[in-house]
Amino acid sequence: MIEMTQELAEQLGKAALAKAAELKRPMSVSVVDESGRLVFFSRMDGAGFFTFDTSRAKAMAAASFKRSTMEITKNKDLNPLLWYSLPSVVPAQALPSPGGLPIKKDGHVIGAIGLGGGSPEEDHECALAAMATVGK
Amino acid sequence: MIEMTQELAEQLGKAALAKAAELKRPMSVSVVDESGRLVFFSRMDGAGFFTFDTSRAKAMAAASFKRSTMEITKNKDLNPLLWYSLPSVVPAQALPSPGGLPIKKDGHVIGAIGLGGGSPEEDHECALAAMATVGK
Amino acid sequence: MIEMTQELAEQLGKAALAKAAELKRPMSVSVVDESGRLVFFSRMDGAGFFTFDTSRAKAMAAASFKRSTMEITKNKDLNPLLWYSLPSVVPAQALPSPGGLPIKKDGHVIGAIGLGGGSPEEDHECALAAMATVGK
Amino acid sequence: MIEMTQELAEQLGKAALAKAAELKRPMSVSVVDESGRLVFFSRMDGAGFFTFDTSRAKAMAAASFKRSTMEITKNKDLNPLLWYSLPSVVPAQALPSPGGLPIKKDGHVIGAIGLGGGSPEEDHECALAAMATVGK
Repeated sequence: MIEMTQELAEQLGKAALAKAAELKRPMSVSVVDESGRLVFFSRMDGAGFFTFDTSRAKAMAAASFKRSTMEITKNKDLNPLLWYSLPSVVPAQALPSPGGLPIKKDGHVIGAIGLGGGSPEEDHECALAAMATVGK
Repeated sequence: MIEMTQELAEQLGKAALAKAAELKRPMSVSVVDESGRLVFFSRMDGAGFFTFDTSRAKAMAAASFKRSTMEITKNKDLNPLLWYSLPSVVPAQALPSPGGLPIKKDGHVIGAIGLGGGSPEEDHECALAAMATVGK
Repeated sequence: MIEMTQELAEQLGKAALAKAAELKRPMSVSVVDESGRLVFFSRMDGAGFFTFDTSRAKAMAAASFKRSTMEITKNKDLNPLLWYSLPSVVPAQALPSPGGLPIKKDGHVIGAIGLGGGSPEEDHECALAAMATVGK
Repeated sequence: MIEMTQELAEQLGKAALAKAAELKRPMSVSVVDESGRLVFFSRMDGAGFFTFDTSRAKAMAAASFKRSTMEITKNKDLNPLLWYSLPSVVPAQALPSPGGLPIKKDGHVIGAIGLGGGSPEEDHECALAAMATVGK
């Protein structure tokens, strides 16, 4: 079974931040494994100190629900307080906001990536850019 | 006095997960006693890591209010933050969401079951399937 | 790579509780995966309601440190407050106490088991009994 | 003013993990800025899921007290609960344990590095290896 590795996490994280640099937006990126545990994090110069929180929250939300946080956000029936009701997710205190994507290999979710620091659309775009590098 | 037992909890939990397998939805099931204390838990392969949180929260909510969490959810006057004001329920940080059912015997609530991992309707359906096995 | 499965977790949990029954000690058993996430839990009739906390805490401690909690307990230099300093472990608020063992396959830790409800020696013995069933 | 940068944080983190690889010890490394905010994190394959907690806690403790956590640990008069009384440090729930070092440039602390996953001595050694690469 394919799992998240340090190498893949770094590759994904750097691809996402390369896109952020292209957009001239200082961002942070978090990559977690399938259990929501942090594997890689990097904060660009100029990105807000709290972008660790937001990027990790998005990655954990995407890993939890196995879908993009943009999609989760669109579900108006989902109580935003849900995230505070999940002890497993509490360290990240995740609120759904675009910029998180599950990472899949061979049909299985092996982890997730989350971006913070840009607009919702920019965060989402950078997450997508990371995905493109793994052919998914 | 009839009480929740390890045997009954396991029977209920397995019946619920058998329905989940039928629906091809990896889920987790939690069964608690009349005091909201966990008696049985099982997570299917592929179910999200946070489904322990959601399944237990639903079981605790159903045991607390002695009604289904689907019914609780429909009460628009109920402030979801209520759950955070109940110290006994805090460990599960329960938010009302369908999939939890009280377990009754001879008119008394002896515990509750909660499912997590599917849609609200699927979670509720699996909880009902468990109930069917105890003739209630 | 071999991973913790629902089937293996249940097999381990039941073997541990069979030993507890032999010792005539009502106990609870928790089995977690390699990331410390709960996979299986069962509480025997008569076991204290808080044994969910202790059994899970031991399993999470053993999964975290990749060694038995009996061995961890013997390290007098280890500050017991350590466990409260680990946000990833906070849901279980683990304190080191005998009765937790890592579960290894092919030299890799794939999870852990924790027992609560007996004396430290009894809890440890039941964890060992579970291990015997997986040829390790 | 010289400050922690993403580039320096990554350089320090990778130097520390190169030493960990040499010691054949899977570890995690956290690098924080002078305000204790995370800049870089990486977890080696095989490092425990909770090493994010420990590595960051050490980095935050070293940045807070502007000295190595090995030195802090030796201060027997320091109440370990101190860290829980510092709201700014609470997110990392830092307990003093060897493996954290402040990062200085021109006499000023610009951040800190923390390692987790090895013995106290190994964690400290890897932090020192990182320092060596910045000529300090």
